[in-house]
Amino acid sequence: MRRSERIAVLAKYLNDYPSRLFSLSFFVELLGVAKSTVSEDLSLIRESWRSKGLGDLVTVPGASGGVKYVPCLSEEAIDRLLKDLAGQLADSHRILPGGFIYMSDIIGDPVITEQVGQIFANMFSETQADYVVTIATKGIPLAIATARALNLTTVIIRNDNKVTEGSSVSLNYITSSRTIRTMSLSRRALKEGARVLFIDDFMKAGSTAQGVVKLVKEFGAEVVGTGFLVTTAQPEEKMITDYHALLTLEKVDEALAQVVINPAPKKQVK
Amino acid sequence: MRRSERIAVLAKYLNDYPSRLFSLSFFVELLGVAKSTVSEDLSLIRESWRSKGLGDLVTVPGASGGVKYVPCLSEEAIDRLLKDLAGQLADSHRILPGGFIYMSDIIGDPVITEQVGQIFANMFSETQADYVVTIATKGIPLAIATARALNLTTVIIRNDNKVTEGSSVSLNYITSSRTIRTMSLSRRALKEGARVLFIDDFMKAGSTAQGVVKLVKEFGAEVVGTGFLVTTAQPEEKMITDYHALLTLEKVDEALAQVVINPAPKKQVK
Repeated sequence: MRRSERIAVLAKYLNDYPSRLFSLSFFVELLGVAKSTVSEDLSLIRESWRSKGLGDLVTVPGASGGVKYVPCLSEEAIDRLLKDLAGQLADSHRILPGGFIYMSDIIGDPVITEQVGQIFANMFSETQADYVVTIATKGIPLAIATARALNLTTVIIRNDNKVTEGSSVSLNYITSSRTIRTMSLSRRALKEGARVLFIDDFMKAGSTAQGVVKLVKEFGAEVVGTGFLVTTAQPEEKMITDYHALLTLEKVDEALAQVVINPAPKKQVK
Repeated sequence: MRRSERIAVLAKYLNDYPSRLFSLSFFVELLGVAKSTVSEDLSLIRESWRSKGLGDLVTVPGASGGVKYVPCLSEEAIDRLLKDLAGQLADSHRILPGGFIYMSDIIGDPVITEQVGQIFANMFSETQADYVVTIATKGIPLAIATARALNLTTVIIRNDNKVTEGSSVSLNYITSSRTIRTMSLSRRALKEGARVLFIDDFMKAGSTAQGVVKLVKEFGAEVVGTGFLVTTAQPEEKMITDYHALLTLEKVDEALAQVVINPAPKKQVK
């Protein structure tokens, strides 16, 4: 194989498995070339991807080391995405009774969720998380994209208690609209001592998020990072304090058919 | 940029957006080289990926044409994956009361779901589908992976009726265990005349699948392909006839702590 052919194969492998550590000997065997040649090829991919803002290759030294692809959106790409999302979500046709906005089509778009997942993955890359946890239903696509970027398993907390989950831990919680709801997670889902990221689409007062933190604690595990696609500006005081949000929903005025939504302040986006 | 550097960038773009058509002029502008050079680079990527079973590049001729990456697992890779999955699922520790088996960890694994999604994407690549539909909760990761591979939007049918979905169409159906359940989908979720794939994790008698077919019809849309990760061998007669399954659950014996599960017969896997 010529260099450019090897590059095509290496780029595919690395990009197919974000955050997975490949040993150099894996590639040596795959391509039938010397380790030094693989190293040169990898440097070349690293430089090309960096120059176009396509993410990074990180080398881990030592016997158990290797190389992994770390997805990374540029500041400009993040700005562009969030402005575009804010624009789409501000469309008055999205207003639903009760001052909610329809987001399911956006959350179902693989290109958008993939990018949102990469933003969260970057945000929480230092947390050494073991799982990405979410609660059914709309947070799931975002959690999956985040988990894919970090090479982690997704764990889904449910609103019901299905026989297909086995014995589970349930928690009743009171939503901001004063209704009692239940969240439930299979006892098999989290290992004791696990570090988890909680990713969801939307937070208003934070009662669900607070419930998730408590439920995770029941497993002897810990939420080490929390990210939302959208949080509301009101109430300003949320029931959890440590979280990141990408967009802030300032106002939904049903009578005037007006939505005000903006990228969240930079300090929150990191 | 040298050829090998261009190849690294092209491979990344194509692989990041499966089934998305890129015009050659997009790459001409991105890389600042002649169209003929881009074409040569693409041929080189195509050959390298094909030779290693990493998928295909398809060229669409004409003014609105271009090139797209089509994920494609080799027969060997599919066999290996399904045997591995069958092995994992046959673990007696997965047996749950009622003869179910615990699958949530497998469905939460991004590497497994990505491959399952590619298998379904290949199966249904000729259906000209517009959406991938699933029903909450466990089918969602598989549907998302299939949608990503086909560059389609995922649509999630829910078991509840949430205010954040707006007005919706609901359907009551009777499960094989004789309980009445409801499935519900936002009126905004599907366009009239749409062609949809239905992807789910598990089918026993097929009452849920039959419900999905009916619900989709209510939108003036049509299910043009149906895929399950696992179907049970019994009952042999399902309530839907046209579907593909990857694995067949032959038997779960709670008393003997025994699970028999096998890759589905080839004719079903395509």
